[in-house]
Amino acid sequence: MPYINIKITKEETPVTTEQKQQLIEGATTLLQEVLGKNPKTTVVVIDEIDMENYGLGGESIKERRKRGE
Amino acid sequence: MPYINIKITKEETPVTTEQKQQLIEGATTLLQEVLGKNPKTTVVVIDEIDMENYGLGGESIKERRKRGE
Amino acid sequence: MPYINIKITKEETPVTTEQKQQLIEGATTLLQEVLGKNPKTTVVVIDEIDMENYGLGGESIKERRKRGE
Amino acid sequence: MPYINIKITKEETPVTTEQKQQLIEGATTLLQEVLGKNPKTTVVVIDEIDMENYGLGGESIKERRKRGE
Amino acid sequence: MPYINIKITKEETPVTTEQKQQLIEGATTLLQEVLGKNPKTTVVVIDEIDMENYGLGGESIKERRKRGE
Amino acid sequence: MPYINIKITKEETPVTTEQKQQLIEGATTLLQEVLGKNPKTTVVVIDEIDMENYGLGGESIKERRKRGE
Repeated sequence: MPYINIKITKEETPVTTEQKQQLIEGATTLLQEVLGKNPKTTVVVIDEIDMENYGLGGESIKERRKRGE
Repeated sequence: MPYINIKITKEETPVTTEQKQQLIEGATTLLQEVLGKNPKTTVVVIDEIDMENYGLGGESIKERRKRGE
Repeated sequence: MPYINIKITKEETPVTTEQKQQLIEGATTLLQEVLGKNPKTTVVVIDEIDMENYGLGGESIKERRKRGE
Repeated sequence: MPYINIKITKEETPVTTEQKQQLIEGATTLLQEVLGKNPKTTVVVIDEIDMENYGLGGESIKERRKRGE
Repeated sequence: MPYINIKITKEETPVTTEQKQQLIEGATTLLQEVLGKNPKTTVVVIDEIDMENYGLGGESIKERRKRGE
Repeated sequence: MPYINIKITKEETPVTTEQKQQLIEGATTLLQEVLGKNPKTTVVVIDEIDMENYGLGGESIKERRKRGE
């Protein structure tokens, strides 16, 4: 019953349902392959964060994106 | 000053204000009864997660709900 | 498959195994009673935090305990 | 590469972009000044929580605000 | 700069350094492959939780392990 | 009643009690100055993570420190 939380920014191009499914599947498989964890009780939660609520290097990602970073 | 975070899925039928109040009250009372914690400084945060952002068994809850799970 | 995280301080008198079981049981029952969630997939994680790593009102709990708070 | 998560309530007056930038900058500078951490890899995430999803003293903040607290 | 938090139980056989490296690498690669995220700023944090602090189905994992679950 | 969680690595030189107090004070003051939050109900939790449990760029910090990073 591992718990995996993935926090990513909400970009101009939204994350698709298919990509979310790949993240859930990939994270669950990773815990199964590395630690033999049971997928049936592996929980994955994806948090999508507004770019102005996410900071790196003292700046919001919204600002960094304006410079193409 | 315990901190309690409750993550639940955002279902078709939204969680009501009354239910959220019951979760806050119930969690605060639990910490008071079991550990004698002071309700006045007990913090409860409820996160409601989109069903396609919440995975169990390698699948999103959105997919599982389609099968009535 | 709700996920509940409980953060509490590591006090002079440690939290007993029995109390942890009561917290796990109580939190799981709370989600079942209020929202009808399935206990089988309800995850509860208890984090015990050193008193000097836990702050309230700009002070560590370690300092506050010295004043009997 | 410290990770700082700030959870605040979504009040009637929303938090401005400028204030979020100040929180990101301030938290990053704090880790640099106190522990010499590299701002370039310091991550700050701000979560804005609905007032009825945030509880203190067994009540939602939404209820407390009605009493001017 | 995604942030990935993995919570697992501290089992009788501890997680090895090599396994932790595989979890960090695997989670970072997953975000790169699915969302094109830059590994250089991808943060992974692994929390190892005592079995009596981790609950599923209203019971601690410590209790479930006694029954071989 | 903001909640601030600071995750940092457990380095060779441990974080001192004084530094933890500075982090708690600094984070509390930051929320007071920027958003006018009440220090009395501001919670700060510092998590110190083993270097092999903390990854950046697909590698544990333990490995990066071996190269002086």
